Amino acid sequence: MNVSPETKGAPAPKSEQTRTLILETAMRLFQERGYDKTTMRAIAKEAGVSVGNAYYYFAGKEHLIQGFYDRIGAEHQAAVRPVLDRETDLEKRISGVHRAWLDIAEPYHEFAAQFFKNAADPDSPLSPFSTDSAHAREAAIDVYREVLAGSKAKIPAELEDILPEMLWLSQMGLVLYWVFDRSPGRERCYRLADRGAKLTTRGVALARFRVLRPLVREVHELFVDFLPGMTDESDAGGKSGSTAS
Amino acid sequence: MNVSPETKGAPAPKSEQTRTLILETAMRLFQERGYDKTTMRAIAKEAGVSVGNAYYYFAGKEHLIQGFYDRIGAEHQAAVRPVLDRETDLEKRISGVHRAWLDIAEPYHEFAAQFFKNAADPDSPLSPFSTDSAHAREAAIDVYREVLAGSKAKIPAELEDILPEMLWLSQMGLVLYWVFDRSPGRERCYRLADRGAKLTTRGVALARFRVLRPLVREVHELFVDFLPGMTDESDAGGKSGSTAS
Repeated sequence: MNVSPETKGAPAPKSEQTRTLILETAMRLFQERGYDKTTMRAIAKEAGVSVGNAYYYFAGKEHLIQGFYDRIGAEHQAAVRPVLDRETDLEKRISGVHRAWLDIAEPYHEFAAQFFKNAADPDSPLSPFSTDSAHAREAAIDVYREVLAGSKAKIPAELEDILPEMLWLSQMGLVLYWVFDRSPGRERCYRLADRGAKLTTRGVALARFRVLRPLVREVHELFVDFLPGMTDESDAGGKSGSTAS
Repeated sequence: MNVSPETKGAPAPKSEQTRTLILETAMRLFQERGYDKTTMRAIAKEAGVSVGNAYYYFAGKEHLIQGFYDRIGAEHQAAVRPVLDRETDLEKRISGVHRAWLDIAEPYHEFAAQFFKNAADPDSPLSPFSTDSAHAREAAIDVYREVLAGSKAKIPAELEDILPEMLWLSQMGLVLYWVFDRSPGRERCYRLADRGAKLTTRGVALARFRVLRPLVREVHELFVDFLPGMTDESDAGGKSGSTAS
């Protein structure tokens, strides 16, 4: 896959409107008809743009999902400001960030369950671990970088690089649970967010014991070696953009 | 859901044959037509039994999947004998048991990918965490009980109860990865099995540090509290059979 048009530069307001219109229309059709059954042609028609125009903004259906990921990410980054600006307690920072994600994602719950089957496949461009998702993933990991940096918890220097990714992985665990959570108001997920934050904070506290650190590194290496997108970033030593492997 | 007929007592050889015939036919139809599109009626017709007879053996399609889990489990329990009878090294015992599962499961790979969407939902009776799967799950956890008991590794007494479940959970992680693994001969999965075994063994070795044990307990409690079938077992303090929550 090549670099998609929307990453070429800052779009003008008009084209940004068209882009948003196509994205909104696609989200609605995915929800109404299902992801698999919705074509780019149908999205273009419903949005009142030409098929060529739709493809100019989004190289395919997968790219629309990437647009959706980017949007959820942007909303999340705004929603975490109050907790990250105010709290210094690590546990509260983590649970606040998890809870903000659950708040943001709630309107998309039904839709997410629909395309989960595709997104759970690590080789699908829709997977949060894919190279196509690198942009959204890196932005999400940055949030956890700030979670750690702004807390009063002591983070061992040798774990500073990998802990943000590990925290993001725990968020992916929460997302997996969320997809299937049918409890009223996603109540089980909020409890899981709190429990997970407590556990993670205890884990970080235990990292003061030097003997444990190799284990944390190895768990991280396991993820990097076996999840395709993360491998790619590790090889490239940086953010890999939207180049597929 | 009530206790299903097949658990009422030891079936006679003839009825065991009919049961196997229905199960084999269902597996074939699921593979050919998809799980969602195959009806009990179609299975009965194809197997040459009455619909009533099919329902006598299996209360529904979900119960056929339970029959499939039981069968895979039985094959696995036979396949691990060489490694569990011979090896005393914990890492080799774990990787041997994981690898035996991959060997056994290979013929069902295509089929498993089909019904994964249902099985990944912790509230589905098809989920490995459901109360309906308790029988197959308990048998699988017993394998890991033997993995630990027969190894020369020192297991702290306070972790003896929960480590077999944790090892089984790591197998579920491997299964999730396996569903999506398209590498030739499932080569990535075999490597993951070995890496996972190495990591788990290091984790167990670190459990000699008393300060870590509460963390292991809490991770386990998190799973028990948030996965429905495991909660049920914990509440009941034992094997709960096929009673749905």
